[in-house]
Amino acid sequence: MTAFNRLGATDLARMIREGKTTPSAVMAAHLDRIAAREAVVGAFIHLDADRAMERARAADYKPATGPLHGVPFVIKDIIDTDDMPTSWGSEIFVDRWPTENASCVQSLLDAGAIPVGKTVTTEFAFFRPGKTANPWNLSHTPGGSSSGSAAAVADYMAPLAFGSQTAASLIRPAAYCGVCAFKPTTGAFDLSGVMTLAPSLDTLGVLARDPQDLVLAHALLTGTILPAPQDFSDILRCVSLMRGPHWQHGTIEMRDVCRRAMRALSESGAETGEAAHPPVFAELTEAHKIVMGYETARSRADVYHSHRAAISDQFAQLIEDGKRVTEARYQAALATRDRAIAMIDEMFADCDALLVPSAPGEAPEGLGATGDPLFSRMWSLLQLPCVALPLGVGPRGLPLGIQLIGRKGDDRKLLSIAGWVHAMLQSA
Amino acid sequence: MTAFNRLGATDLARMIREGKTTPSAVMAAHLDRIAAREAVVGAFIHLDADRAMERARAADYKPATGPLHGVPFVIKDIIDTDDMPTSWGSEIFVDRWPTENASCVQSLLDAGAIPVGKTVTTEFAFFRPGKTANPWNLSHTPGGSSSGSAAAVADYMAPLAFGSQTAASLIRPAAYCGVCAFKPTTGAFDLSGVMTLAPSLDTLGVLARDPQDLVLAHALLTGTILPAPQDFSDILRCVSLMRGPHWQHGTIEMRDVCRRAMRALSESGAETGEAAHPPVFAELTEAHKIVMGYETARSRADVYHSHRAAISDQFAQLIEDGKRVTEARYQAALATRDRAIAMIDEMFADCDALLVPSAPGEAPEGLGATGDPLFSRMWSLLQLPCVALPLGVGPRGLPLGIQLIGRKGDDRKLLSIAGWVHAMLQSA
Repeated sequence: MTAFNRLGATDLARMIREGKTTPSAVMAAHLDRIAAREAVVGAFIHLDADRAMERARAADYKPATGPLHGVPFVIKDIIDTDDMPTSWGSEIFVDRWPTENASCVQSLLDAGAIPVGKTVTTEFAFFRPGKTANPWNLSHTPGGSSSGSAAAVADYMAPLAFGSQTAASLIRPAAYCGVCAFKPTTGAFDLSGVMTLAPSLDTLGVLARDPQDLVLAHALLTGTILPAPQDFSDILRCVSLMRGPHWQHGTIEMRDVCRRAMRALSESGAETGEAAHPPVFAELTEAHKIVMGYETARSRADVYHSHRAAISDQFAQLIEDGKRVTEARYQAALATRDRAIAMIDEMFADCDALLVPSAPGEAPEGLGATGDPLFSRMWSLLQLPCVALPLGVGPRGLPLGIQLIGRKGDDRKLLSIAGWVHAMLQSA
Repeated sequence: MTAFNRLGATDLARMIREGKTTPSAVMAAHLDRIAAREAVVGAFIHLDADRAMERARAADYKPATGPLHGVPFVIKDIIDTDDMPTSWGSEIFVDRWPTENASCVQSLLDAGAIPVGKTVTTEFAFFRPGKTANPWNLSHTPGGSSSGSAAAVADYMAPLAFGSQTAASLIRPAAYCGVCAFKPTTGAFDLSGVMTLAPSLDTLGVLARDPQDLVLAHALLTGTILPAPQDFSDILRCVSLMRGPHWQHGTIEMRDVCRRAMRALSESGAETGEAAHPPVFAELTEAHKIVMGYETARSRADVYHSHRAAISDQFAQLIEDGKRVTEARYQAALATRDRAIAMIDEMFADCDALLVPSAPGEAPEGLGATGDPLFSRMWSLLQLPCVALPLGVGPRGLPLGIQLIGRKGDDRKLLSIAGWVHAMLQSA
């Protein structure tokens, strides 16, 4: 039988509900894994194994009413919790104990899930990495900023994790660690109690190994009823490969993996095509940088003002550059975004999802940086839903992955498509 | 000479800069007014007169570098401050002391302004009123949820105040208290450290008696350079009256005041017209309610979960109703909004601003409710910039007002137009 910590959240919840296991047995499997691996992976900034086990034991004696009763989850350290510190990846805030749970945390608690700990983020979810290593190769970055969440899920320490994305902070670590991630349409997941970086771009998201866990998390966070299992191929007419303006900046293996995915989908019966990107798309990465700098300079003015000496030079630079962006330039960047958004309906006229790279290639060596956000900035700016799916490994033995992009607001449809695509790619 | 507490923030800052007065003399005038009136107006939930005066005295000896050096301001109680409690209008959080300033507070501190206190809000910026009375008639509501901010500015206790709006919480209290208010394009003012209610709708805003103070606050919060004084008529081609779907729900006096404003603008040389509202506008108020309920049920899940017995029945009802809104219904409401947004460019094709009512009429009698949000819900949903301007008094001796609506992102242009309109209406 598969060890409990190798299963997904949906499957674990079902087994608990059916009396095939107990919350404490599930928690013990995960805590054992953490005990064995945390010293080298470094996924957690705050871990309270005793309390997690205490909660799991209490859940053993409660009826399994919630859809995640007794299932462990982990939380990125920029998301408030009322019983664990939330330090935003900064030593300045190491003793920051929020008085309330972020709304997303409360939603999972209401569903019966049990928090295990807070996971490592880069400083203020921006550049400076924490201690986390890539579980596939400890000398390589796990990606960031949701570093600990991606590593914990990849290394079987938790089936489900909260992360967030402003540039590439969910999709990139998911790709580098070989797990699935879902970044919803901007605004679809409530952000109360989540640190703000750039409000036009910030999204809460989830990481999991099993794509059906993304569907469950989406249902819980949006208050929708979980859809009945369906034949995904019914809703999928066409997937289009979009090379996009940065295609040549990816590795050969990344390009191969995208083509391999398209071939597998075609062989599985999906209609496939290629989508050209409108010329304005070449301006989106720069526009994203302008919006991110301008908004972060405002949202984090306080930390810059009060703690300049204790923040990294990279974060200080982001704020200083952002302060120098004029409002006219910021508005022009938003106008560029809006011109691109106006073209998106046409792009989805004859396809249901775009297939694009998740990252330039395998996770780079070294823990001093978390990789290039190039392949996600534009999708964050466009506020579209994105799902990262792992697909094989590259020449250095590290995971590669693709990203599916959906139409704004069609999050559930994208998740259904992603589930089907994932199944097809696994069996291909 | 006019008492210092009768002047606007821009004028006070200039007098301080020119050595015609001092921060402590300005603060003393405001604190005297507060001492004389606060017992009956009840604008403040937290007031620290000694500390405000101490800061003003310190500012006396500093060079006037910031554009608001030595100028007092007040802060709605849903906006975090690191040296005063922020209790969200709820006794549950009476001891909530945030560790950081909201970014908007930090921006005004950086500009040299001095906080006087936290102003009364309705519970969680929703329905249940605080203690504030309308300074024009103490048995009438000041409007809400930015009740204390509007009353403090109207009663000459402060020249400038922060408020916020999710439905009508800036424009309505401004209208009821006879002051100006600015609600920017949604997202234009950073919301870090401001309590979330419904992220698609929430906006930070400012209240002042002098419209040039709105321009200054906008410049400080967006990091733009203050525009040089200009001939506003240069940029104004046409103002259009839009009766809108709820025109008949306003009082006769409200309709008269809108027509009077249009006449005055026409006589002042502006082109004026009437704008019909597209049929979809009749659906926006209901769509706003759906979006607000759905999003608030998520953002404030924690307080509902942990403190049900201590929150008002109205707020509990908002959350319970919001939880029952399906995601499909929520998405349909957003789609209705987007259909209306797609028509807005056409509406502004031959006009620069729409003139609409601020509120159904004068402030209603009684302090048990804060009036009807009917005339602002749709503009909050559409995310457009709005400026409230007072215009005369009604038959019960309470203020009436109009509201100017601008194109998304054209906040500065709308503020310029509002300055010109205000001047024309005052002299009419």
